[in-house]
Amino acid sequence: MADAACPGFRFAGIAAGIKKTLRPDLGLVLAEDDVPAAAVFTRNLVRAAPVVISEERVRGGLARAIIVNSGNANAATGERGLDDARAMAHYAAKAIGCDEKRVLVASTGVIGAQLPIERIVEHTAALHKAARADGLEDFTRAIMTTDRFEKRALALLPLGPKTRARVVGVAKGAGMICPNMATTLVFVMTDAAVQKNFLRSALREEVEVTFNRVSVDGDTSTNDSLFLMASGAAKNKAIEGGDKGQAFRSALRDVLGDLARQLVRDGEGATHVVTIEVLGAENADAAERVARRIGASPLVKTALFGADPNWGRILCAVGNAGVALDPARVDIAIGEVEVARQGAAVGGEAERAAHAVMRRGEYTIRVHLHQGRGEGRHTTCDLTVDYVKLNADYRS
Amino acid sequence: MADAACPGFRFAGIAAGIKKTLRPDLGLVLAEDDVPAAAVFTRNLVRAAPVVISEERVRGGLARAIIVNSGNANAATGERGLDDARAMAHYAAKAIGCDEKRVLVASTGVIGAQLPIERIVEHTAALHKAARADGLEDFTRAIMTTDRFEKRALALLPLGPKTRARVVGVAKGAGMICPNMATTLVFVMTDAAVQKNFLRSALREEVEVTFNRVSVDGDTSTNDSLFLMASGAAKNKAIEGGDKGQAFRSALRDVLGDLARQLVRDGEGATHVVTIEVLGAENADAAERVARRIGASPLVKTALFGADPNWGRILCAVGNAGVALDPARVDIAIGEVEVARQGAAVGGEAERAAHAVMRRGEYTIRVHLHQGRGEGRHTTCDLTVDYVKLNADYRS
Repeated sequence: MADAACPGFRFAGIAAGIKKTLRPDLGLVLAEDDVPAAAVFTRNLVRAAPVVISEERVRGGLARAIIVNSGNANAATGERGLDDARAMAHYAAKAIGCDEKRVLVASTGVIGAQLPIERIVEHTAALHKAARADGLEDFTRAIMTTDRFEKRALALLPLGPKTRARVVGVAKGAGMICPNMATTLVFVMTDAAVQKNFLRSALREEVEVTFNRVSVDGDTSTNDSLFLMASGAAKNKAIEGGDKGQAFRSALRDVLGDLARQLVRDGEGATHVVTIEVLGAENADAAERVARRIGASPLVKTALFGADPNWGRILCAVGNAGVALDPARVDIAIGEVEVARQGAAVGGEAERAAHAVMRRGEYTIRVHLHQGRGEGRHTTCDLTVDYVKLNADYRS
Repeated sequence: MADAACPGFRFAGIAAGIKKTLRPDLGLVLAEDDVPAAAVFTRNLVRAAPVVISEERVRGGLARAIIVNSGNANAATGERGLDDARAMAHYAAKAIGCDEKRVLVASTGVIGAQLPIERIVEHTAALHKAARADGLEDFTRAIMTTDRFEKRALALLPLGPKTRARVVGVAKGAGMICPNMATTLVFVMTDAAVQKNFLRSALREEVEVTFNRVSVDGDTSTNDSLFLMASGAAKNKAIEGGDKGQAFRSALRDVLGDLARQLVRDGEGATHVVTIEVLGAENADAAERVARRIGASPLVKTALFGADPNWGRILCAVGNAGVALDPARVDIAIGEVEVARQGAAVGGEAERAAHAVMRRGEYTIRVHLHQGRGEGRHTTCDLTVDYVKLNADYRS
């Protein structure tokens, strides 16, 4: 994983005894100095303590480090939770030798239990010592909960005829994970120099068309956080828009899109990853809503599991999207196979052919509303027996 | 089931060969004359042909009969579907000897396949002949698809010192049922005389607090229909409001509420029926939204299946409801056991005691927001392994 390094950053991941399994559970992203940083957080009104603290601190647009634990979400933990999140940052800052306001915090794991803060405090010095340029794999493991695989992505960003910067991202999350709800945590680093306000706006826009267009089960966690830091080690003139800005956003979109798809692929119990494409809507927003409704329907999601080309359920979800449209104009294709035209069955061998498409691991469902030029997209996974089993286990 | 008769009505249910299983699949509700009638239909934009036809015809507030088939939804069937729905009514009217505009229609079953209308046409005379005052059980069987049990309810309506009218209801539905989406069809009959405009407004209001407050999987069918007819056989002065109106609405609410709970109990794969009560919201609408969001969360619903007192998921759903509130004030009780106070764990033996509550078949979860006096309620079932298995089967 040497190619996942990102100049200007060091990474660490160690076991601090927060998880009962003794697996790695404490991670660090460390820049060499305070660098431009941006972040987006859960829209759930119930926000974990680290979300509250990090959101406040990242507003200034600069950060030195991010300390992350898995095994405990530090959510629904009251005032003590806020103190604990601040303490994590405080002791990390002490080990690093920096201003604690420049240290961001994230947590993921069990909700409603107080953080075993003493274990974290005891381990911050070792964590800092473990940080190295090629430590991203250790870091990635330390933030995992029930993820089945590590999620990382890389894009290259041309800066000049011969120079290229990197955009490197890692993520954790597999829906809202058993035995308690879990979380999407995403960390993206670049060695490009990027002006801090541009960094923030680029992140907001690219998250909208990547992470905000996937779902596993439609439940938004209390801890979701996505961080972006730019070390500037590439020594380019700071990017603040124009062609370079476009190129940076494009690289960022590639990394975020790639990580988002990996997240769905690792959705709890998921056996199929399906992209819903809606065309011909009145506008992009309407298309998006229809795509999201289809991707959220339990009946559609169980049909995806069974590879059942049950387009009636798709049409039904379209009608439930709260968007004005004429069902008698709707065409539906599964992969390359059209199964419904003008709201009614194509018939013949169409369903058999669509069933064959649905046995693939990944495919696209295309819904054309024939009312305008709006397009939208949503990526989802199937609802499976394993999803229910994973989430139904009694924890105690 | 003699006690389910309703003076002024006859009922029939026969096998017409629409279902492959040769089970009863064609039903009739028949009044002795045109009587006050009201109905509510699915809010899905994709509406089955019988919904379109019945909605148009019931506007006048009078009906003579309802002809219903199971085994085919006559949805997503285009112009031909509308012709077929009209033909069902036409031939039923011919057998009855009434104006076809006074015959309402309903269908439930497979979507996207054309109705085998010739089988229905061939059987309308036999259907009419089979109608008898004690035929409600036959009718109920003829409208079932994958329902595990028949759903009926009765309330008595005092009209005078010694006279009582009846409100009798039957329903079918078990979520949106495998192997294709199915439907809630509800038929309520009373022998009370009720003025037609009052009948309509009473139905609208009572549906709001009964059927619109339950869910199995959150998908609204293309065929949902609820019909109410008042034969007037009790010979009372037609009810049009006042104390008598209140009494009628109360009886109607009892019958609808009872049927709605039976529907959830028969939810596909359901093993628990849980009522979510939200108290202390800013207003009733906000309370309702929070209750509905909790009841729709896949993570909450899988926890109900596993009897896991995972209140973190409940709190998370509260935060996702799109209602302004302070999570740090939220109390959560499962049955009589408080598990979270002011947004944090009660601890101790609370979760163990809550787990015991959750092993019951039916119980209540109470969420107090402590911000006002708004109250709301939603009844839901768990999301189980069987739900997924039932809905994932490939039909062909």
